[in-house]
Amino acid sequence: MAAAVTHPLVAELVERHQETLDRALTAITERDYWSPYPEFPKAYGESGAADGKAAFDALLGRPFTLDGQPTDGDPVGGEASPYGIELGISYPHSTPDALIAALQSARPGWAAAGPAARAALCLEILARINARSHEFAQAVMHTTGQAYGMAFQAGGPHAQDRGLEAVAYAYAEQTRLPLRADWTKPQGKRDPLRMSKEFTVVPRGIALLIGCNTFPTWNGYPGLFASLATGNPVLVKPHPRAVLPLALTVRIAREVLAEAGFDPNLVCLAAEHEGAAVAKALAVRPEVKLIDYTGSTAFGDWLEENARQAQVYTEKAGVNTVVIDSTDDYRGMLANLAFSLSLYSGQMCTTPQNLLIPRTGVRTDQGDKSYDEVVADLAAAVEGLLADDARAAAVLGAVVNPGVLQRTVQAAGGEYGELALAPRVVTSPDFPAATVRTPALVKADADKPDDRAAFLTECFGPVSFAVAVESTEAAVDLLRRTVREQGAMTAAGYTVEPEVEAALVEAALDAGVSLSLNLTGGVYANQTAAFSDLHGTGANPAANSAYCDAAFVANRFRTVEVRRHL
Amino acid sequence: MAAAVTHPLVAELVERHQETLDRALTAITERDYWSPYPEFPKAYGESGAADGKAAFDALLGRPFTLDGQPTDGDPVGGEASPYGIELGISYPHSTPDALIAALQSARPGWAAAGPAARAALCLEILARINARSHEFAQAVMHTTGQAYGMAFQAGGPHAQDRGLEAVAYAYAEQTRLPLRADWTKPQGKRDPLRMSKEFTVVPRGIALLIGCNTFPTWNGYPGLFASLATGNPVLVKPHPRAVLPLALTVRIAREVLAEAGFDPNLVCLAAEHEGAAVAKALAVRPEVKLIDYTGSTAFGDWLEENARQAQVYTEKAGVNTVVIDSTDDYRGMLANLAFSLSLYSGQMCTTPQNLLIPRTGVRTDQGDKSYDEVVADLAAAVEGLLADDARAAAVLGAVVNPGVLQRTVQAAGGEYGELALAPRVVTSPDFPAATVRTPALVKADADKPDDRAAFLTECFGPVSFAVAVESTEAAVDLLRRTVREQGAMTAAGYTVEPEVEAALVEAALDAGVSLSLNLTGGVYANQTAAFSDLHGTGANPAANSAYCDAAFVANRFRTVEVRRHL
Repeated sequence: MAAAVTHPLVAELVERHQETLDRALTAITERDYWSPYPEFPKAYGESGAADGKAAFDALLGRPFTLDGQPTDGDPVGGEASPYGIELGISYPHSTPDALIAALQSARPGWAAAGPAARAALCLEILARINARSHEFAQAVMHTTGQAYGMAFQAGGPHAQDRGLEAVAYAYAEQTRLPLRADWTKPQGKRDPLRMSKEFTVVPRGIALLIGCNTFPTWNGYPGLFASLATGNPVLVKPHPRAVLPLALTVRIAREVLAEAGFDPNLVCLAAEHEGAAVAKALAVRPEVKLIDYTGSTAFGDWLEENARQAQVYTEKAGVNTVVIDSTDDYRGMLANLAFSLSLYSGQMCTTPQNLLIPRTGVRTDQGDKSYDEVVADLAAAVEGLLADDARAAAVLGAVVNPGVLQRTVQAAGGEYGELALAPRVVTSPDFPAATVRTPALVKADADKPDDRAAFLTECFGPVSFAVAVESTEAAVDLLRRTVREQGAMTAAGYTVEPEVEAALVEAALDAGVSLSLNLTGGVYANQTAAFSDLHGTGANPAANSAYCDAAFVANRFRTVEVRRHL
Repeated sequence: MAAAVTHPLVAELVERHQETLDRALTAITERDYWSPYPEFPKAYGESGAADGKAAFDALLGRPFTLDGQPTDGDPVGGEASPYGIELGISYPHSTPDALIAALQSARPGWAAAGPAARAALCLEILARINARSHEFAQAVMHTTGQAYGMAFQAGGPHAQDRGLEAVAYAYAEQTRLPLRADWTKPQGKRDPLRMSKEFTVVPRGIALLIGCNTFPTWNGYPGLFASLATGNPVLVKPHPRAVLPLALTVRIAREVLAEAGFDPNLVCLAAEHEGAAVAKALAVRPEVKLIDYTGSTAFGDWLEENARQAQVYTEKAGVNTVVIDSTDDYRGMLANLAFSLSLYSGQMCTTPQNLLIPRTGVRTDQGDKSYDEVVADLAAAVEGLLADDARAAAVLGAVVNPGVLQRTVQAAGGEYGELALAPRVVTSPDFPAATVRTPALVKADADKPDDRAAFLTECFGPVSFAVAVESTEAAVDLLRRTVREQGAMTAAGYTVEPEVEAALVEAALDAGVSLSLNLTGGVYANQTAAFSDLHGTGANPAANSAYCDAAFVANRFRTVEVRRHL
C-alpha cells in the first residue's frame, strides 16, 4: 500500500465537507427529514434550468471524453431518448482487460488515503454533481423517460442524498475501531503486558456497478459511493440505454480524484457495444470483489450464482401489493393510489402492482363501497389525474423501452384480464414523438388460477391489478405469500381497524417487507427518503440488501491489525 | 410475529446484565484489555476445580439429557478423550426434519423479544457457563486434548469473552436505528409532511453452527451468540469428537430460555451418528439462513458453494508465516517462538507453520546468526521448554486425533524434509494413555520445488518449517504470496529495521492478514484477545469473516420499516 497522498486539496476538502458529513452521520441515526441538496429546481439559480439544458445540448451529437481512461478507439453510441431524440453521443470503449488493469493500478493510493479523505472526496464529487442537477435532470430524462420534474428530483438531489447516505454509512463503519489502541493487561504482581495495536481498513478490490435503465443515478449512487468511500475503485457499467447520467458522474468523479492527486482511473466507465454482455464477463473476473446490480431477477440470480468471488448486492423484480380494507379518507386514498400508479408510468421498482380488495367491500367515510365501486372510483381517480395531456405527461413521463410498451399493448388487448381502465395514448405537448401511455387497471380474481398467474408475476410498467379477494384476512395472507414467493420492494395497506393494522404489520415483519399505512396525502408508497426510509429490506426475494444500512457497507472492506509491544 | 414475551425474569435479567453489556459496548470501541470473566482458575473458588471435576465425572458413562428437544430414541455416543478415557456419554438424536420443525416453531417469540431482552438472556447464558468454567475445562480438555490450563482459559473465560463480544456487536448493530422516528418535511408555505416511522429488527431464520474438534467453544461461541442475539434460533451441530462442550452449552442456553418463558428449542443440539454427514444435509435446508463453520478448507468451500440460501461464515485452513529478519532480543524471540510452536501441540489455527529465515543470516543482540544457527537455537529452545515431561504435557496437551498423529509420524520419518528437531514421545504423568508429541521442526529451502510443495500446504499439528530464503525481501514476498494463495490466520515478523518493518506492514495490509511484530514476551502470535484483537481478517482465503466486527453480525438480521401519517 502506497503512502497516503498528501495533496493539499485533500485537507481542504476534508475541512470543507466536515460539517455536511457530521450532519449526515447524525441524520442516519435520527431518521428525521434532512437533505443538504435542495429538491426545488429554483434553488439552483434563476438560469439553472436553462444552463442545464444548454450544457446537455452541448453534449449531444459528439464524442463524450474521459481523459486518461484506456480506450480501444472503437467508441460506443446509440442512446435514444424515450422522448424521441437521438442523443448521438459516443462513449470511449475499452476492453475488460484494459479497464481492470487501469483500476488495479489505481488502487494503492486510494486504499492508503483512509476513510476521512475518501469521504471528503466523495462529498466533493456529490457537490459538483449537485451543482449540475439541471444538466443531470436532462440526462436522466432523456435516457429513462422520466418527466423533467421527476428526473430533476429523483435523478438529482434525491439520488445525491442516497449517495451521501452511503458515504456516511461507509465512514461510520470504517471508523468504529480506533486507528490505534493501547492494550494493558494486568499480570498480578508482575508488570502488565502492554501492546499497541493499529487497525487499518483494507478495501476489498474492484467494485462493479451495473446500472439500470430507469434510475441510473438513484439506484447507482448507493453502491458506487459505498464502494468508493470504502476504498475500492469502481467500474461503472451503465445500462446501454442510460449511459449519459453515469458517464457524467464518472467524469466528475475522475476530475475530483485527479485534482486531489489520485489516479482518475479509480472510477472508469465500461460502455458496451450492443449485445456485448460485458456485465457477464466483468462480473466473474477474479479482481472484481464487489458488485452492485439493479435489474431483472434472471440476471440478478445469475450474478448471485456465478460471481462467487464477489460480494453481490442485488435489487431485482418484485410484486408490490396494497391491501385495501377500510379508510376514513376515501378521496385521499384514491388520489394517493392514482398518483402512485401513474408516477413515471408505473416504471418504478416500488410502484404498487396488485391492489387487493375484499369482495365484501370496503368501509369508508363515504359509506361502504363494493369491490366494483372501489375499482371504478380508482379508475376515475386515475382518469381525473391524467385528463389533461400536459399534466398527464408531467406525471407519466415516457415509456422507457419497447418491453414496457409491449406490456401496455398486451394490457390494452385484454391479455392480462378484463380492463377496469384502458391505457390511453397521451401526446406530450413538448415532445410529440414521446411514447406516453396512461396506466391500465386490470380486474382480477384471487381465486382464479389464470388471474393469479397474471398478477403474481411482476408486470413492470403501467399495468396494475385490482384483485378481488375473499376477505381482508385473505388479502393479508395473499400479501404475505406474494412477498415471500415473488418478493416486493414495497407494501401498503389501508385500514381503520386496529386488528387489521396489527395483522398487516405482522405480515410485513413476517414476510420481510416495509409497509406504508394509510397514505392519503403527499407521501407515496413508491417513494423513500434517504436518511430516513430504508429502500428495500434484503429480507425477501426482491433484493438481498437495502439502501442503506450497515450491512450494505460493512463487508466492502476488512480490517487488518498490526500489534507490537509498547 | 407474536407479541413480546413478558416473563418477569426478562426485565430482571436486562437490569442485572445492563452494566456488563454497557461495558462490553465500550470495550469494543476502545480495544483496551477488558474481560468480565476471570481467567485465573482460582477466581472460581477454593473448590472450583474439584467441583468442576466432580460435575464432569457425573456426566460420564450416562445419557446426556436435553429436556424437551425432539428425539428419535436412537442416542449418539462414541466420544473418546485424547487423554485415553472413554467418555461413554450418549446424546439424544433427532432427525433434521424434527429439529428444524422444533426450531421453526420456536422462532416467533424470540424474534419479537427484541435486542435488549435477547442480549440479556445471552449474557445470563454466558454467566451460567462462566460459573461452570472448571466443568467446561474438563469437557474441553477431554474432547480436544488441550491441557487443563489451556482448556480452562481458552475453552472457558476466553471463549465466553468471544461470545460476549459477539453479543455486544449484535446489540450495537441492531440498535443503530431508533425504534421509532418522527419525520417532518417542510413544504414551503403549506403544512409540513409528517410521518412516524417504526424500525423493527427481523431475524434471518435458522442458524446452523458447525463446531470444530479443537476449539468447540472458542470458535463456536461467536457464531452461536451472534445468531442468537440477533433473534435467530440456533442448531448446534458439534464435531463428533467434541460434542460435550457444546452439549453443555446447549443445555444451559435451553434452561435460561425456558426459565424466561421462551421456547427452549431455540437452541438445539444435532448430535450425529458416525458418518451421517448431517452438516451437509442441514446446510442446504431452505430454513437455514445462517451458517457458522470452522474446519477444513474442503468442507468450507463446499458450504460456500452449496449453501446458497444462507449467509455463510467460514474459518478454514491457512499457512501461518513468520519472517525473521533481525531482533534486539534473540533469547526472547526464541522463547516466544518455541512456546508458540509448542502450545497445544501446534493444533491451533493460529500456530505459526513457516518460519522464513534469510540464508544470509539474522542480525541479533547476540551477534549475527546464520540460518543454521537460528534453526539450531530454536530447536534447542523448544527442547528446553519441553525437556520435563510434566511441563511438556502441560504445554502440549494431547494430540487431538489420528490425522494429526499421522502427520507427526510422517514428520518423524522425514517425509516433509530434513529434521532440525525430531518429535519426541512425551509421557503425561497424569494420563499415561494420552498421545503426546513434541513439535517437529523441518528444514526447508524456499527455492526447492519439493520443499515448497510441503511447506506451502497447511500441515495442521506439531510440524513447522524453518524455511531458508534468499533474503529478507524474498521472505516478505513469500509471506505475501503465501497469505494470498494459501490464506493465513496470523502472520508475525521480527526486525529492528524500520524499512523491513514497513515492508512487513505493507505486505500484511496488501495480503490481508493481521501481523504481530517482535513478540518476545508473554504475548504469542497464536493468541488473540476478545474486545481488543480481531481473530482473522476475512481478507484472505483462510476465513471469510473475523471475530468480531460489524460485518460478522450486521447481515444476521434485516430491518423492516412501518410508516404512517402522524
